Amino acid sequence: MNDSGTLARQLAELANRVSRLEAEAAIRRLHHAYGYFMDYCWYDEVIALFAADGEAVFLSGVYRGHESLARLYKTFLGQAYTRGETGPVYGFVADHFLLQDVIKVAADGLSARMRGRALLVLGSHESRKDRHPQLPDQVYEAGLYENQYVCEGGIWKIQRLEYALQWQALYEKGWTHTKTDLPPAVPPYPESPIGPDYLIDNTRKVWPERSAVEFHYRHPVTGERIAGASA
Amino acid sequence: MNDSGTLARQLAELANRVSRLEAEAAIRRLHHAYGYFMDYCWYDEVIALFAADGEAVFLSGVYRGHESLARLYKTFLGQAYTRGETGPVYGFVADHFLLQDVIKVAADGLSARMRGRALLVLGSHESRKDRHPQLPDQVYEAGLYENQYVCEGGIWKIQRLEYALQWQALYEKGWTHTKTDLPPAVPPYPESPIGPDYLIDNTRKVWPERSAVEFHYRHPVTGERIAGASA
Amino acid sequence: MNDSGTLARQLAELANRVSRLEAEAAIRRLHHAYGYFMDYCWYDEVIALFAADGEAVFLSGVYRGHESLARLYKTFLGQAYTRGETGPVYGFVADHFLLQDVIKVAADGLSARMRGRALLVLGSHESRKDRHPQLPDQVYEAGLYENQYVCEGGIWKIQRLEYALQWQALYEKGWTHTKTDLPPAVPPYPESPIGPDYLIDNTRKVWPERSAVEFHYRHPVTGERIAGASA
Repeated sequence: MNDSGTLARQLAELANRVSRLEAEAAIRRLHHAYGYFMDYCWYDEVIALFAADGEAVFLSGVYRGHESLARLYKTFLGQAYTRGETGPVYGFVADHFLLQDVIKVAADGLSARMRGRALLVLGSHESRKDRHPQLPDQVYEAGLYENQYVCEGGIWKIQRLEYALQWQALYEKGWTHTKTDLPPAVPPYPESPIGPDYLIDNTRKVWPERSAVEFHYRHPVTGERIAGASA
Repeated sequence: MNDSGTLARQLAELANRVSRLEAEAAIRRLHHAYGYFMDYCWYDEVIALFAADGEAVFLSGVYRGHESLARLYKTFLGQAYTRGETGPVYGFVADHFLLQDVIKVAADGLSARMRGRALLVLGSHESRKDRHPQLPDQVYEAGLYENQYVCEGGIWKIQRLEYALQWQALYEKGWTHTKTDLPPAVPPYPESPIGPDYLIDNTRKVWPERSAVEFHYRHPVTGERIAGASA
Repeated sequence: MNDSGTLARQLAELANRVSRLEAEAAIRRLHHAYGYFMDYCWYDEVIALFAADGEAVFLSGVYRGHESLARLYKTFLGQAYTRGETGPVYGFVADHFLLQDVIKVAADGLSARMRGRALLVLGSHESRKDRHPQLPDQVYEAGLYENQYVCEGGIWKIQRLEYALQWQALYEKGWTHTKTDLPPAVPPYPESPIGPDYLIDNTRKVWPERSAVEFHYRHPVTGERIAGASA
């Protein structure tokens, strides 16, 4: 039974298991690197993490492909945060604290999904000049990710990054007294120069309203599909 | 030396190492899923993560088995948070930010321990009606986990989840001016309808008093047992 | 082709891949254990995590070797925090929330680098007596790690821990109204009894000024070196 054919097959099976662990580690690194680039408003580096047809979902709007991603990251966020300057910028902070990943690599090792969460610390020091009028001076933001990844030529890339904003809390007020004033990003581009290509069907409510962010994974113990009911 | 018997043995040893890495990944996913279910008050899904004789330790009280766990999660927490409604619920937040795991899988691959920590963001929006009178409007909570896991039929489950609350901080006051008003959960059930089965011997003090939460692991470099002295 | 020589070589290659995954897991555990020891001011345990010639960089000052590390951790931090007492100490908190690691193990499996981040919750309860006059009552601190590790005799140790403080925020004021008052640690030892051995060439600015913390890793998708420009 321990002939070389059997051993070769067992070795190949074990190599597949190792590849999936390596994939999980690579995706964790990729996502964490995304966060560190976001800290510094390094949006060219952010966009280069996406596959050519990769997309980001932000405020229920889909930005697909690198050109649309540039509209989201460089025009929309970059202008609001730092008027297009790459960071770190004097007196500006956009720290992305990323944590709590649940990663599932597909059986063929070529795609994967991840749930994760973020706590964002956003704002400006009082001594910073030239702040965007709609950017709060200091605000917390919490969000969930339900992302998809693809492995192309041995390299993991973001296929779809869906950031589901959960709540914002102005520092002076907290979440009890803050209403998140970030509705779905309408109208779409080109009617709005920072608009998405289109909206997802099921637009997400934001705080104090809530929407469940569907889980990509089944229950870890029962294996049952998890209800994704919305509130 | 490279005969097939030697190779088969080496392959089996390597497969064991891979199994332990897979176990570590599975336990991380299990724990992170726990947190996402807690976010939404999905307590049936939470309880299903535990082994049949699994237990949770909360406020120094032990709740053992699924019936007792239902008393803790559904009656105690669920009523206080949302009067039994599964979330997400309008204007209510119980975000569990889980991080910093130290996981040790046993040599036989059938049990494991984990230390981890949580930052909880709890409370209600001012527009939410029908709040529980003892639930603060907005409060941070920090806690440590020292958990045990068991692998049954190839599936990892929670054998013992010990949540050691460290401090709470009312948003308006911070940790300097908040005294955590959550003493050990006495009296036990059935004297209290939300009480535990029994208390652990060494009940934990809460902020501003402190108790060390013992480490399950030895010092990573010296291999020495780590003192677990209490303050 | 599936002769035992080929299989042995493939097995050895796979074992190398597994070793690197194990190294990554060991480094994560090591770093997370560092944080839990820091929580409790267990500085002997912290210092024992370092290689004999290991070093820590704090406020742009380098503390090299266990004697210098004792000056940093036990004399500098330990006196400021708890006047030398090991914790947990009544009414004192120094929680280290550690997350978001990007770990790269060298090809030879004997060294590694890690980027990570921390959110620190520091301070004292109002009922605590004998506080250090320069320790704020309640303050957040955010920092980045760019660490190096070494494997000696099969055990991973910290070769260089560089903690790059990013900002502090007094709880009552937030990051908008807090200026981090922690300049580079000059003069060096022995002129200052808590000073470093020497300063790094490129001292880091602190909030509201900013300095980019260079990335040890290349862009995960393009493989290009990442600009580390400073603001």
